[in-house]
Amino acid sequence: MRPVIDNDFLLHSDAAKALYHQYAEKMPIIDYHCHIDPQDIAEDRIYDNITQVWLGGDHYKWRLMRANGVSEEYVTGGAPDREKFQKFAAVMPKAAGNPVYHWVHLELKRYFGYEGELNEDTAEQVWQLCNERLKTLSVRKMIARYHVKVIATTDDPADALTAHEQIAADPDCKVKVIPAWRPDKVLNIHKEGAAAYLGKLSQAAGVEITGLDSLFAALSRRMDFFASHGCCASDHGLERTPCPAAKAEAEAVLTRVLRGEEVSREDAAQFQYVVMRFLAGEYHSRNWVMQLHMCATYGVNTFQQKKLGPDTGFDGIGSSCNVEHLAHLLTGLSADDALGKTILYSLNPNDLDLLAVLTGSFQQAGMAGKIQLGAAWWFNDTYSGIRAQLTAVANNSLLGNFIGMLTDSRSFLSYARHEYFRRILCDMVGGWMEQGMLSDNLKTWGRLVEDVSYHNVQRYFFQQ
Amino acid sequence: MRPVIDNDFLLHSDAAKALYHQYAEKMPIIDYHCHIDPQDIAEDRIYDNITQVWLGGDHYKWRLMRANGVSEEYVTGGAPDREKFQKFAAVMPKAAGNPVYHWVHLELKRYFGYEGELNEDTAEQVWQLCNERLKTLSVRKMIARYHVKVIATTDDPADALTAHEQIAADPDCKVKVIPAWRPDKVLNIHKEGAAAYLGKLSQAAGVEITGLDSLFAALSRRMDFFASHGCCASDHGLERTPCPAAKAEAEAVLTRVLRGEEVSREDAAQFQYVVMRFLAGEYHSRNWVMQLHMCATYGVNTFQQKKLGPDTGFDGIGSSCNVEHLAHLLTGLSADDALGKTILYSLNPNDLDLLAVLTGSFQQAGMAGKIQLGAAWWFNDTYSGIRAQLTAVANNSLLGNFIGMLTDSRSFLSYARHEYFRRILCDMVGGWMEQGMLSDNLKTWGRLVEDVSYHNVQRYFFQQ
Amino acid sequence: MRPVIDNDFLLHSDAAKALYHQYAEKMPIIDYHCHIDPQDIAEDRIYDNITQVWLGGDHYKWRLMRANGVSEEYVTGGAPDREKFQKFAAVMPKAAGNPVYHWVHLELKRYFGYEGELNEDTAEQVWQLCNERLKTLSVRKMIARYHVKVIATTDDPADALTAHEQIAADPDCKVKVIPAWRPDKVLNIHKEGAAAYLGKLSQAAGVEITGLDSLFAALSRRMDFFASHGCCASDHGLERTPCPAAKAEAEAVLTRVLRGEEVSREDAAQFQYVVMRFLAGEYHSRNWVMQLHMCATYGVNTFQQKKLGPDTGFDGIGSSCNVEHLAHLLTGLSADDALGKTILYSLNPNDLDLLAVLTGSFQQAGMAGKIQLGAAWWFNDTYSGIRAQLTAVANNSLLGNFIGMLTDSRSFLSYARHEYFRRILCDMVGGWMEQGMLSDNLKTWGRLVEDVSYHNVQRYFFQQ
Repeated sequence: MRPVIDNDFLLHSDAAKALYHQYAEKMPIIDYHCHIDPQDIAEDRIYDNITQVWLGGDHYKWRLMRANGVSEEYVTGGAPDREKFQKFAAVMPKAAGNPVYHWVHLELKRYFGYEGELNEDTAEQVWQLCNERLKTLSVRKMIARYHVKVIATTDDPADALTAHEQIAADPDCKVKVIPAWRPDKVLNIHKEGAAAYLGKLSQAAGVEITGLDSLFAALSRRMDFFASHGCCASDHGLERTPCPAAKAEAEAVLTRVLRGEEVSREDAAQFQYVVMRFLAGEYHSRNWVMQLHMCATYGVNTFQQKKLGPDTGFDGIGSSCNVEHLAHLLTGLSADDALGKTILYSLNPNDLDLLAVLTGSFQQAGMAGKIQLGAAWWFNDTYSGIRAQLTAVANNSLLGNFIGMLTDSRSFLSYARHEYFRRILCDMVGGWMEQGMLSDNLKTWGRLVEDVSYHNVQRYFFQQ
Repeated sequence: MRPVIDNDFLLHSDAAKALYHQYAEKMPIIDYHCHIDPQDIAEDRIYDNITQVWLGGDHYKWRLMRANGVSEEYVTGGAPDREKFQKFAAVMPKAAGNPVYHWVHLELKRYFGYEGELNEDTAEQVWQLCNERLKTLSVRKMIARYHVKVIATTDDPADALTAHEQIAADPDCKVKVIPAWRPDKVLNIHKEGAAAYLGKLSQAAGVEITGLDSLFAALSRRMDFFASHGCCASDHGLERTPCPAAKAEAEAVLTRVLRGEEVSREDAAQFQYVVMRFLAGEYHSRNWVMQLHMCATYGVNTFQQKKLGPDTGFDGIGSSCNVEHLAHLLTGLSADDALGKTILYSLNPNDLDLLAVLTGSFQQAGMAGKIQLGAAWWFNDTYSGIRAQLTAVANNSLLGNFIGMLTDSRSFLSYARHEYFRRILCDMVGGWMEQGMLSDNLKTWGRLVEDVSYHNVQRYFFQQ
Repeated sequence: MRPVIDNDFLLHSDAAKALYHQYAEKMPIIDYHCHIDPQDIAEDRIYDNITQVWLGGDHYKWRLMRANGVSEEYVTGGAPDREKFQKFAAVMPKAAGNPVYHWVHLELKRYFGYEGELNEDTAEQVWQLCNERLKTLSVRKMIARYHVKVIATTDDPADALTAHEQIAADPDCKVKVIPAWRPDKVLNIHKEGAAAYLGKLSQAAGVEITGLDSLFAALSRRMDFFASHGCCASDHGLERTPCPAAKAEAEAVLTRVLRGEEVSREDAAQFQYVVMRFLAGEYHSRNWVMQLHMCATYGVNTFQQKKLGPDTGFDGIGSSCNVEHLAHLLTGLSADDALGKTILYSLNPNDLDLLAVLTGSFQQAGMAGKIQLGAAWWFNDTYSGIRAQLTAVANNSLLGNFIGMLTDSRSFLSYARHEYFRRILCDMVGGWMEQGMLSDNLKTWGRLVEDVSYHNVQRYFFQQ
């Protein structure tokens, strides 16, 4: 049997191998969007076993187990870790073509040196091997294994960022950990608990929120606070595209919420438009990156979601984003000279070309690739999904300016996803070279894959 | 010239060949959804000529002839069978890449031993060869050629199922033929003849239909009747996604129809929601499979459709399904503990990932793959369409739990479509093995292709 | 270093090479849809330098420069041509996978004999080489280089067609140049300047436009005028699918516009439906081809568009076309026996299968491929976009009846796009032959690629 992951995994031509091994492989990682808990880095957490690492919070794996008929007891429930691992191992021989199959075996090889199949028969061996290794493989060592230089976490505006302060003050921590500003709770004003959240934000900012102006003031103060902790990016989860509206309309919606009334999703879309116009201007003036994650439906199975809480694997892909509304937002910002660095992601794969083309109508002079089509995200973070995203960028924009991959993950072993991405990137570009669809100038394309792997994202977030 | 279809048709790697020839090829077939007439099996029909078999009811072929400018006389009209065949043969050299080109040559090889091209020049030779062979190649022999063990037909709730009774009583008939419950006429309450149909259903059930409760009672009695004939699956053709509504709203719509009034498509969508909630619960309690065929537009060219009737080739792909409404239906069933085995098909290929992801939020403990993304259907039943569907399942769920292919056909030669599917499946999985994207463990992946070819569907319909 | 474009560019199998070099390569070109200025042909224009040819009006290239952060000064502004060229050359090493990379290098080879990479270092050499050659490479010589027999320009109904007359009267001009009828300004009755345009049309036709009947009379007279100049095709840019409406509704909208009132986009959609029904009938009776270019959003960045004018690169892909409304239009025409040769293009790539299937429900007896799915258009005119379009045609219709490629271009060097298309076509069909997915009969498939390259479009526009 050959190793499941061999040295040339995903590299199907000589040019692809040269691009990866001579150029991409050695580049460090900037993981500019993820959902890990910074407290784990602050404490340099040690896990008891592989189930904790892999199944502690990873809804990708939970969904596969449920698709295999595994009961919740063994997914998020109270079954013993060893039994949960057995159930998960049994999923692998059915997961041909699934990215989790690749991630799992890549992580087993890179972090634990295991090269065989994971399945019901090998589960015990893998369990022992991993757990032994985990005794010394702390979170910071996982990060160091992949040369991760920067990690941007995802944080609420009301968050005190204490873990970030702790890490910054720790001279032994080699990775730079910065917060990213995610004000979803401000924007989702139609959801349960919105008024209570505004109270919390009020308190954190030291500004009483009585209307749009004071809301904006509170947000500004919190952005200053985030900036003082190194924040240089925002992030938004927009289930629906904000709907063009005037300030007075947004003010009316906010007033109703502050009075304790409920507002509809349509009301919220108007409120969101006005708040996004404000926030985008603030981001631009602070030279922050604006990330719009669109078209996810959080809690598509509301029944299960209510039982298990958010981010437990009951989300879905929403309808295509409203390109017209989005263009309205960007045009307004463009006209106000307030459109800064912006990344557009849609969870709906049918939006790839539409958004890639849209970026091309809003580029700004002075910075290469200022408006970006976001990396293949969540359900699209697959072999074919990554290729589709790269193809959309290449067809409709400049692949050489793409800022590349992120993990979007809750696990510290997921840096392997950057390797996965880079191999696919090198395979595509190398394939084009070998098929005569590009020049055979290895230097030219080696530089491109280095840029996409590291230099572009470094410049995008930390220069200009 | 090599044979059009050679032994390794569609198998482009050694692993693919091994998977197909050692594993998939020998598995029997369960054709769990088709449109053949059971009376033909009951009578073990013999066809006069190949035109009758191929062009008697196959709108795929009719559409290609029309795309070639052939007048209706030679398509569904009164022209002599030999002349119709000549017109059809002339289409083949233009049909590169079309699945009909593959099906035709596969059927010519498997049933008639012909290995050359079909075209205008060879038409006479093929005509003679096929017709000679057809003298002894009865419908049951066609079925036996591909080891078909079970066929599920598509039947109206008011149907007396006499052909099914006849077949069940015939000890010489080796194939199990069971009805599938297709209550489209109940749900399409906005279409012409809806009230008259309710009368017919009333009579068949022996229940006077005066409102929702009696409609449900009538449907229950007919489901019992279908169950007593071996039925274990329902099937729905939903042009639009049912729109969340309360029972009273559905009752109001039904009342208007019973009074002889017309109702709109929007009214019908509300009625459908309530009836689907009822029916799904009934299916679940009977352990039936629920199949939702969504987003077909029946009779997109209403002008031609009126002239030639339904299923004559004037249908189309509708807009994407409303994922939100669909999720509402499934969540409601999930909350009622009434969500049973369910297969989601959309004719709109843009829905593949959305539906595959949706299945993952509604899986049920205790059965692997309880909620399925349906096989590539109708206009998607192509080489690239099958690959796209398998990719969507692999990316977003577990390929190893997929229940595999069906013919959806009106022709008894169409079992070759199962071979077509299996070759594509083995080529994908084998390709992954050879490209280092899976382990090289032939046993692991051989088991997977056997499961997808046969065992999964057998368990899904006939166990648990 | 091998040449960027070698002899077998894009031809990845022996069969592909045979199909291209023995069959497709030698066929002449009919460029049935483009945006070149016929005056340039009439005058047999000579360009001063390569910047004028490449960057004078090509928004594809402008968009790539903007995506590279180049300021407008160097894109459409007043910077010196040599400096603009330098900025453009710097884009190429980032444009891996972009069709412009292929077009640029193909044009450099075919027209200028340059085989190396274009980049910042080679820019000076390429600049000198091209400019030297351009001294004698007039527009007509560019056209002759690719054996272009017919060019159909895109013209407004009020246009006097003087350049066309001049060309027709010039015995030295070997290419046939005919106008195509593009009445967008008539249909976009909600846009600024609509009333003024109607006045202009009135004057050109010599018919006072006071309502629908006189509008139709004016259009008829202009169509007669266009026909007398060889016109045999119309062309429409429809941002939204016309919405079924009665003549009285359209009349009311027109009346308001004639009175100087503004009308909404929704009003316009009703007006458009009625006008399209009229025009389509006229086209049919004149045996003209009707081309519907759907789902572009002209000026998605309205702010930039206003500064730089139309066709400067700020357009986008709109939402999917409304298949239901489109089917309504086609059904109505079909019922009136007024549905003639029709080509359906959507800029939204998600519409490919929907439209390909739609064509199949509206084919007309007596002419092969009367209703066509349009070639990969604008943002879809890419390697993968062309393959996707060909796949949609092959899957859902007859590839052998496809009328093939057009440039849609504003540049006289763009005939290389026909070569690009033909190589992809031959690679697909040849690949199928070599993979055993078609017979290995080179004559059969050679004939198909010749038909798609030339014979079909010749018959479609100029016969029957």
